[in-house]
Amino acid sequence: MPAINPDRLLADLRHLRSIGAQGIGVVRPAFSAKDMEARRWLKARYEQAGLEATIDGVGNVFGRSRQPGKALLVGSHSDTQPTGGWLDGALGVIYALEVVHALAADEATGNLPVDAVSFQDEESRFVGCLGSRSMIGDLAPEAEQGAVDRDGLTLAEALRVAGLADVPRLRLARDRYAGFVEAHIEQGPHLEDDGRRIGVVTGIVGVRSIRLVFRGQQNHAGTTMMARRRDAATALYEFAHRINQEFPKAAAERSVWTMGRLRVEPNATSIVPGYADLDLQFRDASEAPLDAFEIIVARLVAEINARGGVRVEASPSRTPIPPTRMDPGLQQHIETAAQRHAPGKWQRMPSGAFHDAGIISASIPSAMLFIPSIGGISHDFAEDSRDEDIVLGCQVLADAAASILAAANAQ
Amino acid sequence: MPAINPDRLLADLRHLRSIGAQGIGVVRPAFSAKDMEARRWLKARYEQAGLEATIDGVGNVFGRSRQPGKALLVGSHSDTQPTGGWLDGALGVIYALEVVHALAADEATGNLPVDAVSFQDEESRFVGCLGSRSMIGDLAPEAEQGAVDRDGLTLAEALRVAGLADVPRLRLARDRYAGFVEAHIEQGPHLEDDGRRIGVVTGIVGVRSIRLVFRGQQNHAGTTMMARRRDAATALYEFAHRINQEFPKAAAERSVWTMGRLRVEPNATSIVPGYADLDLQFRDASEAPLDAFEIIVARLVAEINARGGVRVEASPSRTPIPPTRMDPGLQQHIETAAQRHAPGKWQRMPSGAFHDAGIISASIPSAMLFIPSIGGISHDFAEDSRDEDIVLGCQVLADAAASILAAANAQ
Repeated sequence: MPAINPDRLLADLRHLRSIGAQGIGVVRPAFSAKDMEARRWLKARYEQAGLEATIDGVGNVFGRSRQPGKALLVGSHSDTQPTGGWLDGALGVIYALEVVHALAADEATGNLPVDAVSFQDEESRFVGCLGSRSMIGDLAPEAEQGAVDRDGLTLAEALRVAGLADVPRLRLARDRYAGFVEAHIEQGPHLEDDGRRIGVVTGIVGVRSIRLVFRGQQNHAGTTMMARRRDAATALYEFAHRINQEFPKAAAERSVWTMGRLRVEPNATSIVPGYADLDLQFRDASEAPLDAFEIIVARLVAEINARGGVRVEASPSRTPIPPTRMDPGLQQHIETAAQRHAPGKWQRMPSGAFHDAGIISASIPSAMLFIPSIGGISHDFAEDSRDEDIVLGCQVLADAAASILAAANAQ
Repeated sequence: MPAINPDRLLADLRHLRSIGAQGIGVVRPAFSAKDMEARRWLKARYEQAGLEATIDGVGNVFGRSRQPGKALLVGSHSDTQPTGGWLDGALGVIYALEVVHALAADEATGNLPVDAVSFQDEESRFVGCLGSRSMIGDLAPEAEQGAVDRDGLTLAEALRVAGLADVPRLRLARDRYAGFVEAHIEQGPHLEDDGRRIGVVTGIVGVRSIRLVFRGQQNHAGTTMMARRRDAATALYEFAHRINQEFPKAAAERSVWTMGRLRVEPNATSIVPGYADLDLQFRDASEAPLDAFEIIVARLVAEINARGGVRVEASPSRTPIPPTRMDPGLQQHIETAAQRHAPGKWQRMPSGAFHDAGIISASIPSAMLFIPSIGGISHDFAEDSRDEDIVLGCQVLADAAASILAAANAQ
């Protein structure tokens, strides 16, 4: 089996970390100068590893193997959150580079084609998973045209500034591939809590999000009696608390729901609020609990509206992401490799966070491998993983890639 | 009885409205150039009405009668909210001017001393009721030193810019007065709803305000299971909804409570909030319900803290304002005048909003008279009252002033 080079792996990861570094964190949002600098560096590293490398018209860095036969696509994304950690996305991107090196250096695997990729804008500066969506032909022109970042910059302008406006966009050649494997930090505490070092992802949870809008009547907080108030915040508090009471009755074991963003107007201590809105997001690995949650929301909304005070409207605030299953055949290869290098220290698990593999799985068989996040922390400067876990994860991925490709090309 | 001049009254009100007018509203916050312009105009009008007029070291405009005997202080404030209506404060200030004119012009009342005042910063740009507090010696040096407006300007700098830094401050000569009467728009809907044209204020409600701070743990909304979340917003929703369920059990007929300002951090759809805070303000005309509300808050806070997840802290977020009773003797004079000019069309009522009379009542007997607000709207450009109500209110005030002074000086 191919042996990875831990020093090269960690050196490449740390070099990528240095591009956009701020303290222990990284600020490298999609299409920023630092993001494009990282992508140009990555393209050069792909070429040094023997791949035919390009940056396509949405910023995807793609390295194509020159070997014949069924190929494996390996990678993740190198853009970060506005204030991101150093491993989210970067880990899987550098793993892919190292797997290419490792397989090429081994006589038994040197002829197996591994393509490497760093997708663009997984972190939703403009369009979540922009790069992987573009590669499978799932980027609606309307979504692209309406896309702006939080400062109002349009995607079109960002592409122009990055020099990508007239660059062709790549499409995934489905028939070329045995599949896609993405490695990632877990971004949660389960592996650490359970004393495991590798997670084999069984599926990626579906996500739905509902925007609740509460319309009442703004009034003076001293002179407006309780009985005649139409307080938008009061309705929001009731709705949110009752969601937290009702959802557990319909939840599956790993269902989660969050009401983390709201707005109250005019948000003043002495004024009865006339307007409020709230985002309710919920996730599960299967559709049934998500459907049940939507029924609860509709019932509470109808109940509050029936009273005739504050008026509530519920509408989807994002395109629902359906739960996706990872390919069982690919999972089996990862499990075998995990059992070889970390016997008894790996487990199957769903992914509560979304990933490019959730997009690519609509086109070709896809799988994911997780390594532990220290303290479960992610999307934060403090995000980190132990060096030995980083090295182990890459070796498991290299083994899995070799066995997937050996099997695919033996047929 | 003295007759007011409706044309002069309305002309003076409209002139004051023109200083700082923006559309149908007025922008004349304390110590702004427009506020000081209005105060200089008012000082000149006081002098034309025969008063000895000054602007004191905190911006109070004070007009002292030259007549001997027990005096009546009449007035309100001429500063406005950042985007205020044209009558809040201004009505009572111009009423005082007109009452001085009317009593002086009548042979039977020409010898009765009426002092007029426009207090400074009732609307809390720097210190709520700054002017009336200063006049009764209730302005703590610490409160004054720490005072800044929402843009960070200090009170000391505002006084300097207004040319008041070295101007002496007036103190109310308690023995001089039979009392203080402040007329004001109701700022609520009760008079209009009840078909009444005059409100005789029985007391001003007390106000207490508690800041609740919820500290949990910020986390990823996809990977953090419900059981291990410490969601600050979830605790806030529960607390706020349960306040709305529990307070009615302890409330008096006109108790009000408001949770109109809150903050959730980082306030993002996909992040479990680690921090939230909320203001809970409550008002009543007597202390008992306010005490009962504080006991409920303490019980809910203790209950949430006992669970050991999110940590809640409750602390007073402003100095409590105790309920104040208006002077029964002065009320009686206003009631008699109201019954004369609007038989069956007046009522006794508490004030749900705070006023300078709530400060002055700690020093001399005080009373208030309300006229209807159209639609109950106040603290808004759309604030308005009908001309006939404006005229009626001033005539009632003039009658009441004459009878208060006749009684006080007959003793």
